[in-house]
Amino acid sequence: MMGKFQIRTDLALEARESYEADDVRVRGVRVEEEKDAQREICTTIVHIETENGAKAMGKPVGTYITIEAPNMSTPDEDYHREISEELAKHLCRILGERRGSVLVVGLGNRDVTPDALGPDVVGNLHITRHMIREYGRMPGDLEKAGEVSAIVPGVMAQTGMETLEIIKGIVEETNPEVVIAIDALAARSTKRLNRTIQITDTGINPGSGVGNHRNAINEETLGVPVIAVGVPTVVDAATIVNDTMEELVAEMDRSASMQRLGGTLGTLDQAEKHQMIRELISPHLNTMFVTPKDIDETVKYLSYTISEGLNIALSDAQPDREKPDGGRG
Amino acid sequence: MMGKFQIRTDLALEARESYEADDVRVRGVRVEEEKDAQREICTTIVHIETENGAKAMGKPVGTYITIEAPNMSTPDEDYHREISEELAKHLCRILGERRGSVLVVGLGNRDVTPDALGPDVVGNLHITRHMIREYGRMPGDLEKAGEVSAIVPGVMAQTGMETLEIIKGIVEETNPEVVIAIDALAARSTKRLNRTIQITDTGINPGSGVGNHRNAINEETLGVPVIAVGVPTVVDAATIVNDTMEELVAEMDRSASMQRLGGTLGTLDQAEKHQMIRELISPHLNTMFVTPKDIDETVKYLSYTISEGLNIALSDAQPDREKPDGGRG
Amino acid sequence: MMGKFQIRTDLALEARESYEADDVRVRGVRVEEEKDAQREICTTIVHIETENGAKAMGKPVGTYITIEAPNMSTPDEDYHREISEELAKHLCRILGERRGSVLVVGLGNRDVTPDALGPDVVGNLHITRHMIREYGRMPGDLEKAGEVSAIVPGVMAQTGMETLEIIKGIVEETNPEVVIAIDALAARSTKRLNRTIQITDTGINPGSGVGNHRNAINEETLGVPVIAVGVPTVVDAATIVNDTMEELVAEMDRSASMQRLGGTLGTLDQAEKHQMIRELISPHLNTMFVTPKDIDETVKYLSYTISEGLNIALSDAQPDREKPDGGRG
Amino acid sequence: MMGKFQIRTDLALEARESYEADDVRVRGVRVEEEKDAQREICTTIVHIETENGAKAMGKPVGTYITIEAPNMSTPDEDYHREISEELAKHLCRILGERRGSVLVVGLGNRDVTPDALGPDVVGNLHITRHMIREYGRMPGDLEKAGEVSAIVPGVMAQTGMETLEIIKGIVEETNPEVVIAIDALAARSTKRLNRTIQITDTGINPGSGVGNHRNAINEETLGVPVIAVGVPTVVDAATIVNDTMEELVAEMDRSASMQRLGGTLGTLDQAEKHQMIRELISPHLNTMFVTPKDIDETVKYLSYTISEGLNIALSDAQPDREKPDGGRG
Repeated sequence: MMGKFQIRTDLALEARESYEADDVRVRGVRVEEEKDAQREICTTIVHIETENGAKAMGKPVGTYITIEAPNMSTPDEDYHREISEELAKHLCRILGERRGSVLVVGLGNRDVTPDALGPDVVGNLHITRHMIREYGRMPGDLEKAGEVSAIVPGVMAQTGMETLEIIKGIVEETNPEVVIAIDALAARSTKRLNRTIQITDTGINPGSGVGNHRNAINEETLGVPVIAVGVPTVVDAATIVNDTMEELVAEMDRSASMQRLGGTLGTLDQAEKHQMIRELISPHLNTMFVTPKDIDETVKYLSYTISEGLNIALSDAQPDREKPDGGRG
Repeated sequence: MMGKFQIRTDLALEARESYEADDVRVRGVRVEEEKDAQREICTTIVHIETENGAKAMGKPVGTYITIEAPNMSTPDEDYHREISEELAKHLCRILGERRGSVLVVGLGNRDVTPDALGPDVVGNLHITRHMIREYGRMPGDLEKAGEVSAIVPGVMAQTGMETLEIIKGIVEETNPEVVIAIDALAARSTKRLNRTIQITDTGINPGSGVGNHRNAINEETLGVPVIAVGVPTVVDAATIVNDTMEELVAEMDRSASMQRLGGTLGTLDQAEKHQMIRELISPHLNTMFVTPKDIDETVKYLSYTISEGLNIALSDAQPDREKPDGGRG
Repeated sequence: MMGKFQIRTDLALEARESYEADDVRVRGVRVEEEKDAQREICTTIVHIETENGAKAMGKPVGTYITIEAPNMSTPDEDYHREISEELAKHLCRILGERRGSVLVVGLGNRDVTPDALGPDVVGNLHITRHMIREYGRMPGDLEKAGEVSAIVPGVMAQTGMETLEIIKGIVEETNPEVVIAIDALAARSTKRLNRTIQITDTGINPGSGVGNHRNAINEETLGVPVIAVGVPTVVDAATIVNDTMEELVAEMDRSASMQRLGGTLGTLDQAEKHQMIRELISPHLNTMFVTPKDIDETVKYLSYTISEGLNIALSDAQPDREKPDGGRG
Repeated sequence: MMGKFQIRTDLALEARESYEADDVRVRGVRVEEEKDAQREICTTIVHIETENGAKAMGKPVGTYITIEAPNMSTPDEDYHREISEELAKHLCRILGERRGSVLVVGLGNRDVTPDALGPDVVGNLHITRHMIREYGRMPGDLEKAGEVSAIVPGVMAQTGMETLEIIKGIVEETNPEVVIAIDALAARSTKRLNRTIQITDTGINPGSGVGNHRNAINEETLGVPVIAVGVPTVVDAATIVNDTMEELVAEMDRSASMQRLGGTLGTLDQAEKHQMIRELISPHLNTMFVTPKDIDETVKYLSYTISEGLNIALSDAQPDREKPDGGRG
């Protein structure tokens, strides 16, 4: 779902980086990083632990796992499989024991290519709820394989309804233990597009994401835990223009000072410059997005990789069972 | 939604015809017919008025309007417009005053061409609920234009849920006054395919359609009236084979008797012959359907015609207001 | 491409079986069979070696390889991979040295689910011609990996042109060494649907397939060898009705004779019975096909399996190179 | 087809405006304008008459008709019809007598929403070539209604071939009198997106469009006249950033001078400023485009409007025949 304009990122990683640039530690936010150089996969976990941290980051308290892999959207099936397994590993951890019945929600608009990620992921899932309910678990199935159901609700222009209304009605009627929402995200920078998967236990929180937002899709609004899985496929057009102009102003300041002219730009203070930039950004841009020209190929690979990750995670109800000393004994 | 095999038709018109062939009047069933020779549109209204009639017809008590037009699926926009208006007229009558808020449900599988009618119709609707809720009615709008919302729930193999569960949850959450369900139907004969629209106030009633069916989508299961609009786009494969074989047996009986041989076939009684036919029908056929090779073009025209009919009916909240003495005074 | 009615099969295997039933050996036709019980894959190679054999079979002289696997269209990726490899093996053999440049043609109508196989296969191919022409072969590429190009021409109702005209124009302009045409086929029996891949070096030959057919897509019409790969996804509606009725008549004859009544049906000779059956088959049926209700899932799996087979075959320009003593020396 | 980056517009109208801003008349370029205030349709015809004009405009010698209508992509069928008729009028004029056989080419990528305009237009055309060839003209047809054929060639990433190769092959094989190419365009400004149709008799000329371009689709490369019909649906991401930054620099210069500081920015000359801007534009942006979030709805309306325009123009082979004294005498 692509929302209204603001200087915006759906990635906790990018929200943190804006502080990092200023070499500031944010209280209430803890970060772990793990690099697998051989597989070229970098996993970062941002824990937002306090309301103070949430306010600073503009995202609710919770865990945000980011899997970055530069070749995520190139055609290399074996590599995609490794990413699917990394995703499955984190999903299993977050899901814990809550896997008896899972409703997967494919958010977004199937008719707009970069927004079709959610619907496409649902199209490749192994749906089992109706089979298990009619025939019971198959002999080959794991003892506790969960019932998987799925819905592609569509966007408000297609349905006339808030997505929350649709999901809430279905959740109340079918009582899943947990909801997994798949969505295309907006990044701040084109560098992260189509090479980053974010998994969070906080659900979908439009806007600042802090506070009891009317249309959030999360445990508070649905009554069951909501895990969100997303990939940034677009950058807001206004954001990209704003950011490049900020760089231009910074660069000009540097040039000016290098030229020891003290001069002009210094006389426009920071606030005046921001104001000037905002005024120059066409209001048209607020309803526009930026995306790569090969987004069709990219979304095809990404959606397949995420579906596989979910299929692995949801068919394996006992992730620890292979470990001889593992598990519950 | 294409269901399990049985000698089956979703058209009340065809159910009635099987009696007509035997020149039998069914008690509790009343029929009106209206032919517009110039426009080549024939409208039949079957009223099933008693439980006795319902049992005989295999369809619940209610009204079944059938619009037949031979060129419904040929590319002639002006003609399509006339059919849309005929459809709108009947919809308005059935809707009556219940048009403040309407949920349109596009049943069927968008990935199987003849079953994509419902999803395609929803794709061309004017969705207004979110606009009216945010901005109020536009100056140009009729005073009481209804809030139109819509959903394409998908089929059980895609969702793992009964369609009823999905619709019920959404209805309880959004409280429409009435549901209109659009669906591709199965006819008994290829002659009716893609040239017949059925409108009924009884909703969707799988199987025999009589009795409190678990997965019916009707007023009883949803709590609000359900109008169903459908076009037959397939014939069950087993039905088509059965029917042709019944004709073959009848023909052979005639040939035999014409030959005054009294003979063989007479010795197989009616029940034995039916039994033989049933045994010859491959069980594979129960999961198969018959449809025309140009079904893509056909579904495109039909879905557009039905969308237009709905758009006309739902934008006109006061169908009688032009009549000076009309309406409620 | 789904053609005009006749009692018809596109599978050489089924053409042969009609003789087998009568325990007749067809001169000029040689058959090899190979069963892999463990993998449940059965491969049959029909060699039509003489014009006499071609006339008897209703198919041109050439080789017809049929891979049968009962679970071909169930969701089991490892199994699909084995079938892809079996397909690749046979393609490599037929292609031989002609792999420097290959044009893959996805025949059929992408808007009719069972006919979308060809277009869907092309959608998953690794297309390399433009890359090799611009950048040369990549370091990782095999030395002689071929240039792969592809086209989805559409059907005549969409283009107004014979498919042959389109392909011929493109072949003359781009000069591939060989054409591989992917197409959905019609089987005679529902038993073979969606579980059989046919590979032939004779191209696409509509109708009887013998003689210099105007719209055949083969070496004669294109000037380069044409390999056709197809899967039966439909049965002609008239064929299925005809066949069941033939069985009914046979069964009635048996019943009659069992009853030692000698009688009636005997008095209708074979030709009269066939005539009666033909007359009962509605002419509507000639434009109709029969296909399974889950054809969307089936075509998704099949097209992916075939794409993979092609991707393996076309990226491997030297299939024998791993064998130390291998090759042609 | 969305090409490589450069500060770019496919609209002759925008190319001219950059001169207008400087109040410069371009020699060899003549402009006519016609406003229909009531219908809110503004038509501009740019005639590039000399090689000098072509060089200045960066577009080949020829006629460029632009139809602008602010509500082109809002849901108002009667208004769309008026635009279709305006389009048909201009097409008829350009086509003149060359309408015996027309090949319509739907350029672009059907899987990327803003680039699907061409394929979608072809999907709604009345294709007649095969019907006329098989049955002759229908009684209702105009005596000289042309044979309409169509192709959707796909993009190079899908086919491995230059679009020109595909079209050229088909043209040589089927010999149409004229080609009409439909394509999604890139505008310079978001203001023109989805509200402008450009019709030109110069065909498709990528890049500067002047000179004998390798992959142009025009009379020179195909041997028959090529009419191009396009709608701008995207802006190159780098263009939008560049333009906003140019405005920022201009604005800062003004602010600076207003502050009578003479100063800093003046010391960076025009060329230095352009250089700085170019360096700040991320190379990522060269492969990105900007498009509105509701592009799915927009392309649906636009493609339908253009199809209708073509259907009107191509079914009417004698546009002047109703005029009693008609013709050009």
